[in-house]
Amino acid sequence: MLFSQFFAPTSRDVPSEAVVISHQLMIRAGMISKTASGIYCWLPLAMRVMEKIIAIVADEQSKIGSQRVLFSTIQPAELWKESGRYDSYGKEMLRIRDRKDGEFLYSPTNEEQATDIFRKYVHSYKYLPLMLYQIHWKFRDEIRPRFGVMRGREFLMKDGYSFARNFAEAQEIYQRVFHSYINTFRRMGLIAIPVQADPGAIGGNMSHEFQILAETGESTLFYDGRLLNASAEEQLSIYAVTDDRYDSQTAPIPKEELMVSKGIEVGHIFYFGTKYSKPLDAYVLDENGNKLYPEMGSYGIGISRLIAAIIESSHDNRGIIWPEAVAPFDVTILNLHQQDEECRDIALKLYQAISSKREVLYDDRSISVGEKLADADLIGIPYQIIVGQKKIREGKVELKNRKTSNVELLSPEEVIKRFTSNGE
Amino acid sequence: MLFSQFFAPTSRDVPSEAVVISHQLMIRAGMISKTASGIYCWLPLAMRVMEKIIAIVADEQSKIGSQRVLFSTIQPAELWKESGRYDSYGKEMLRIRDRKDGEFLYSPTNEEQATDIFRKYVHSYKYLPLMLYQIHWKFRDEIRPRFGVMRGREFLMKDGYSFARNFAEAQEIYQRVFHSYINTFRRMGLIAIPVQADPGAIGGNMSHEFQILAETGESTLFYDGRLLNASAEEQLSIYAVTDDRYDSQTAPIPKEELMVSKGIEVGHIFYFGTKYSKPLDAYVLDENGNKLYPEMGSYGIGISRLIAAIIESSHDNRGIIWPEAVAPFDVTILNLHQQDEECRDIALKLYQAISSKREVLYDDRSISVGEKLADADLIGIPYQIIVGQKKIREGKVELKNRKTSNVELLSPEEVIKRFTSNGE
Repeated sequence: MLFSQFFAPTSRDVPSEAVVISHQLMIRAGMISKTASGIYCWLPLAMRVMEKIIAIVADEQSKIGSQRVLFSTIQPAELWKESGRYDSYGKEMLRIRDRKDGEFLYSPTNEEQATDIFRKYVHSYKYLPLMLYQIHWKFRDEIRPRFGVMRGREFLMKDGYSFARNFAEAQEIYQRVFHSYINTFRRMGLIAIPVQADPGAIGGNMSHEFQILAETGESTLFYDGRLLNASAEEQLSIYAVTDDRYDSQTAPIPKEELMVSKGIEVGHIFYFGTKYSKPLDAYVLDENGNKLYPEMGSYGIGISRLIAAIIESSHDNRGIIWPEAVAPFDVTILNLHQQDEECRDIALKLYQAISSKREVLYDDRSISVGEKLADADLIGIPYQIIVGQKKIREGKVELKNRKTSNVELLSPEEVIKRFTSNGE
Repeated sequence: MLFSQFFAPTSRDVPSEAVVISHQLMIRAGMISKTASGIYCWLPLAMRVMEKIIAIVADEQSKIGSQRVLFSTIQPAELWKESGRYDSYGKEMLRIRDRKDGEFLYSPTNEEQATDIFRKYVHSYKYLPLMLYQIHWKFRDEIRPRFGVMRGREFLMKDGYSFARNFAEAQEIYQRVFHSYINTFRRMGLIAIPVQADPGAIGGNMSHEFQILAETGESTLFYDGRLLNASAEEQLSIYAVTDDRYDSQTAPIPKEELMVSKGIEVGHIFYFGTKYSKPLDAYVLDENGNKLYPEMGSYGIGISRLIAAIIESSHDNRGIIWPEAVAPFDVTILNLHQQDEECRDIALKLYQAISSKREVLYDDRSISVGEKLADADLIGIPYQIIVGQKKIREGKVELKNRKTSNVELLSPEEVIKRFTSNGE
């Protein structure tokens, strides 16, 4: 992609309402555009990151046997009256009347919809366990939307739902999802801390939040340091909580192992038994022809929020530092002297050769050297190939690692080889 | 994918409200589940088709230089008051009040949103032309939603927007999109007829609809048969209209070339000049520092509708016949005798070998031979590999082409080679 043709309106200015760093950087890097309070449009740079996150999440869901569906965003109030949440959900639920004055809502979560599909189509225990998920937009009418897409009203989530024959099977699925979440975040270059959580509005009696570590996080985590090197199975029972649940007197944790970190919630899983299957009368027949109400769980990853959370956990004072797995491009080529014929030839040659194997943003714009370098650091692509008059006369270009700022002086051929041979 | 673990609730029954064949087949094949009038959930089989269509559409958009964004589904009324459409759009617009009693709506189209983003970020003629598109859900509160997802209220579209310096550039883009649409539909195995159209609510003075041929189509097309073999550039001016615009007295078409076919609208493109850029005061500065209002166009493909339209244009009395490019799986293996050890061994071997290169649905369910064959024809995967006791004793399996019903008797090795070597 040529930067001169890429719609990434970078900027030096940020609106005063952008108080957290991810919000500031997403605006400055031209990733999002505000439509209304807590509602954003996503621009091409952000879309590329979103697509990579979605691909990783979908792949990990598929590995645990969860099948992709799509629930409608607009749902009839009737369905939510069956579970009792139409009244209890409060003002965060965006309620809508259609042209025939029917009561509808914009889905804030989908336990009801998933259970409704289950009861329509699944009638025998033989089809259990069943896991369904979707990646879709939801709406929660937050009273104080803030921090950009971190706490928006319209937001993208992966939400999954499981149906099991009994408690043991439900627990097995819960652990499978737990393990898969750790992997999902690790693949994005993130460390996720699973903390015991309050099931809140979803209900039920077992719940974990997944918090990624970020100095600017809104939560404070207290956890046993051994968590970081434990297997996922051990992690289920190792102590980790957010500050609202922490009590230094009773916490079962040796003083020398206590870790305190800031975190951002990016995932949340729940086991809630028959909380929805019973009121919605969703059952199958068991081996003996008796009614069996499936034991359910639900599992969320906040995808739009995750984009901001990754920035909170990976940036410096010059801009974003994308983990390679979710970077909008693998590498950017900066031609510092766009008017110089040799620079143009070399940059174009690098672009054509590397593009065959990697996603490359070639900054061919006629702007100042300073602006070009600043934009590259701001946008945060993991590797920068810097083509400049002086080094080119020596037959070299610079290869800069955005994260470490380490610079190597290499010939164009060496750089091409670096990015096109297998392995880095 | 093992069918025993695949959530595709096939059925013999269809609700009486399903009057068109695509609606009936989508329900019978377990592709969609109704949430409310004109609102559906999409089940795994449909999701696989949708993802393939999205991939083709996105690839063709990228080829013409259009960049992917995502507009919000919920938009402030204020923006639509600027264009005048908040009042003129009528009851098809789903109007919403948020918790603070602010006026919002669920986006039915995005000329305003696209123009708003343009005016915020693009200030110089140097950045023109610009093309943006999204693939996202919209809502139109139809008074009579019908025909399943063919005329739903919540629907998935690709909608694109272009901004050009002048009329000539706008026309060049219009032609580029026109050509790209023909290719997009052709890649899905469809013949699309571009017909001169009425710009309707979008406005403007140049518009084409793309209709795919289907005997059960809702539109009647009158066109010059030479259209079918013309280049896309020639197609722009060859006569083709829907019945509401046809007049046999004045139609500029030789009698012997007149073709009459049924069609289904799946795409619509518009050129409308400065209809939105002027009222929204979206301008750039030209070479001389003067205001230049971009000449705009918008370009839609109805993706959820297309899934139904493909079924209308490609089915028989046994079920769906997916064109290969959009089929949910490339091939299905039917093991007719799941209890027979040799059949199980051969079917599993075929499944493992072919899965390495192709998407395979292996029907390993313990159901009757008749049900298995009927489900395969209903679901419409292009190739069926039928493993049965009798033929296996002769060292053969059957390879059936769903479309032609042609059956070949081949050894398992020959079938594996057919699907795993390059080319078919």
